[in-house]
Order: sequence, then structure tokens, then C-alpha cells
Amino acid sequence: MSADTAGYEYRAAVRYLEVDQQGVVFNMWYLAYFDEAMTGFLEAAGVPYAVLQAGGHDVQLVHTELDWRGALGWGDPIRIRVRPEGIGRTSFTLAFEVRGAAEDVLVTGRTVYVCIRLDGGGKTPIPDSLRTALAG
Amino acid sequence: MSADTAGYEYRAAVRYLEVDQQGVVFNMWYLAYFDEAMTGFLEAAGVPYAVLQAGGHDVQLVHTELDWRGALGWGDPIRIRVRPEGIGRTSFTLAFEVRGAAEDVLVTGRTVYVCIRLDGGGKTPIPDSLRTALAG
Amino acid sequence: MSADTAGYEYRAAVRYLEVDQQGVVFNMWYLAYFDEAMTGFLEAAGVPYAVLQAGGHDVQLVHTELDWRGALGWGDPIRIRVRPEGIGRTSFTLAFEVRGAAEDVLVTGRTVYVCIRLDGGGKTPIPDSLRTALAG
Amino acid sequence: MSADTAGYEYRAAVRYLEVDQQGVVFNMWYLAYFDEAMTGFLEAAGVPYAVLQAGGHDVQLVHTELDWRGALGWGDPIRIRVRPEGIGRTSFTLAFEVRGAAEDVLVTGRTVYVCIRLDGGGKTPIPDSLRTALAG
Repeated sequence: MSADTAGYEYRAAVRYLEVDQQGVVFNMWYLAYFDEAMTGFLEAAGVPYAVLQAGGHDVQLVHTELDWRGALGWGDPIRIRVRPEGIGRTSFTLAFEVRGAAEDVLVTGRTVYVCIRLDGGGKTPIPDSLRTALAG
Repeated sequence: MSADTAGYEYRAAVRYLEVDQQGVVFNMWYLAYFDEAMTGFLEAAGVPYAVLQAGGHDVQLVHTELDWRGALGWGDPIRIRVRPEGIGRTSFTLAFEVRGAAEDVLVTGRTVYVCIRLDGGGKTPIPDSLRTALAG
Repeated sequence: MSADTAGYEYRAAVRYLEVDQQGVVFNMWYLAYFDEAMTGFLEAAGVPYAVLQAGGHDVQLVHTELDWRGALGWGDPIRIRVRPEGIGRTSFTLAFEVRGAAEDVLVTGRTVYVCIRLDGGGKTPIPDSLRTALAG
Repeated sequence: MSADTAGYEYRAAVRYLEVDQQGVVFNMWYLAYFDEAMTGFLEAAGVPYAVLQAGGHDVQLVHTELDWRGALGWGDPIRIRVRPEGIGRTSFTLAFEVRGAAEDVLVTGRTVYVCIRLDGGGKTPIPDSLRTALAG
């Protein structure tokens, strides 16, 4: 992983609407955060999504998983580190670590993405630019 | 308004995720409900959205307004009556009344939609099928 | 699993706002659907959430995972079967199968819930009523 | 309006999930943005929401309206200027102007908030700190 992506951290803050009546972020919003973090990571890695698409590619989720050890509340900072965790021929995996204001990891995630062709042609090998970026 | 649409009532129930830490539906979700109620109303009026689109048309919001007198909580029934409130050459207005389990109106809304061409051609006269449906 | 829950199927329809510019349901909304399906399943099993809470209990997610084989589009029916997949002392697992109009499974999920006390006392044994309901 | 709030501009970027299959931000998300912009504005004005609540107060929406002249797409910058537009005894109005990358206003909004007591006591006069902040 290059210096740029090693240092990449997605940053946002919890919106009021994302918090449920238990006072914590409702579970699904973590997938919203991961989506933003993935896009930001690819951009930091030199492969902006727009460039991927201009090359005729897109990515689709085939698997995701989340583990909660803690929770975020309204206004809390959201900090997400992203790490590539495996690259196949047509798919790759990103691991996510969510922190708030403190250093302890509150939520972890892992998502498997498959490369597809925008023209509806289905699965396609990961383009070289993306492969290089993920390999760092 | 025909008998079919006069009797139309959108029905759903408040999802847990739509409720904020005040214990009531967060304001933006009413626009989600109105969108569903609009689609259901058009279908009840004999002009399903898919038919509109097949005819090369779509609608866009240009104005909406909401007034709150009460609130809905988790699991509450959502019941919305829809009433056409004006038809121009390229735009029409729908009025919404939101009720929960009881008969009192909790929220009212009003949205102005403009007809556009799906091919990017911009504003276009309301197609006759839709005009007839709205006039009832 | 009792006859009632064996026959339980959560039913809804995809909202327009849940569909992204690829024309398919954005991934996070499946967790919204699972939350609704879980609540409906518990109610069908004779343990409505309100009763759980009246007894001083609540549940929290500690793990969830999703696998996508297909996609849902705007207006598609959402049908979800729910099956208990393991009951521990303080936690239980539900498996989810998502179908659309056809019989093939489009998305599967699995969520581990832990029972907590509403008074902030942390993890607590699954109450008997819930244990019985899950064991069917 | 003080120099601090006159210069206040809420900034974010459109999330992928907020964009619908027309390729533009779905209407309800503007109310999400306004909520964030309101909170940021109050903080810039020296009355953070947490301070309001610590003083036993909260605010509720009683009216909102939106007018669309343009649209935002995925990744577009969101820039919102907030301006107080009237202060009554128990309610106040904020006006919102949404811009993207360019200077033209794409969406305008106006929301009326009423001050309530957190203890369930209903409407209450706007606290002096908030009144001063809004008057600038």
C-alpha cells in the first residue's frame, strides 16, 4: 500500500438523522460510511471512481460483514481506516476500521467487491490501474 | 377525482430507523412517504409511473412544503390521503394529509411536480392520460 | 420453530429513494429490511418488541453479514424469510433470505443479536419468552 | 447577524446513496442537509445544540418549504448559506440557499422552528442566548 493510501482516513461526523431512539447510529449507516470511505480510498490511491467508470468499469458488492464493539452518537467524529485485504482476478476485499474521537476501534467491516463492465457484460478482470493501486 | 382515487390511501408503518432520538419520525422521511403516496395515487388513478415513462415522460419536484401539527413514532401506522390541487400546462400540484392510527391530521404537505421529457428535452405538457387522471 | 414463524414472511416493496444510479437497491437498505423482518418475526413468534422492552430488555447487533447474488429494483416486491440459527445464553442468530417476485434467493444475511438490559446494565440472559419463541 | 454567522457556510459532498436513478439527489436529502446546516449555524453563532439542550431546550420543525431550480449529482460539493428570517416569541425562521461547485443557487429552503422544553412542557420562549445569536 502506498504512503498515500496508508495515510488515508475517511472523516465525517454523525448526522442527527442517523441516530436512533437508543441514541446510537442505526446499523445500516455504517454501510453508507464504508461506501464513502471506499470511494475516498480509491481516490487517494490514484484511481478515482470517475476514472474507473470512464474506463468502462464499475464495482458491485458481493459480500459484506460488520462487527460492533461500540457505538457512535450524534455529532461524534467518524474516522475510518481502509486496508486492501486480498486481490483476486475479478474481485478485491477492503477492510474497514471505524474509530470515533478516541483510538479504540468501535466497528470493523470487510467488503468484497467484484469488477463489472458498465456495458452490462458482467464480471471482468480488475483493471491494471486499480490492481496496482490496491497492491500499493 | 374518480371513485378510485378518492378512496386511495397510502398505507405503511414507521420503520425503526426513521425515528430519531426524540422518539419521533425525522422530518425528511415525510418526503419519502409522499413520494410513495404519489406513485400509489397515480397507479390508483390508472397512470402507473412505468406507463408514464414508457410514454417518454417523467416528473420532477419544483416545490414542496410541509406543516407539522403532530408526530409519528416507531411502528405507528402511516395513512396518507392524496388530492390533486391544481393542474397547469406542464405542472400539477398534489396535497397530502398524513394520519396515524387516529383520525386527526398530523402532517400536511403540498408538492408541485413538473412534467419533463425523459430524453432530456425539458418541460413538456402534461400527457392527456395523466391530465384526465388528475382531473378525475 | 412454530407453525406461525415457519410461515412468516416479511413483505414490502422497494421505495424509489432506495434505488441508486445503477438502478438497484443500494446495499445498506438490506439492513433496513432485515431490521423490519426481525421485528415482524418476533411479533409472529409471540414476542412483540414492545413486550420485550416492557420486560426491561432490548437487543443490539454485534455482527451482521450479507451476500448478494442478485439485485432488486424500484417497486420490486421484497419478501424475506427469517430463520433462527442458534441461541446462546445472551445472544441469538437470525438468518435472512431475500426474494423478489421470483423464487430465487437474491440476498442472504445473518445477524447476531445480544440481549441487553434497558437500564444500561449490559448483556443479560435471553428472557424465557424469547428463548421459547426462537426455539419454536 | 454577527460576522461569524454571516460567513458561515455548511459544506459537505453528495453521497452516492443520496442519488436516485435519475442521477440527482433525491428530494428528501435536502432536509437532511438543512438539519446539518442549522446545527452548524447555531454552533457558529455561539449556541451549540448541546448548550441549548443543557439549558432544557430543544427545537421542533413546524413548517418547511423547498424550491428546486437545479440539481446536485454524486460527489458534488454542497454549500449552504443560512440566514435568520424572523424571530417570534417561541419560534424562529431560517432560510437556506444551496449551491454546488458554481455560484448559482440550486435549491432554496425555509424552515420554521419552535422552541420546546425538553421536559415535555411544550412551547417555550426562545432563550436569550439563542435570540441574541439569531439577531446577530
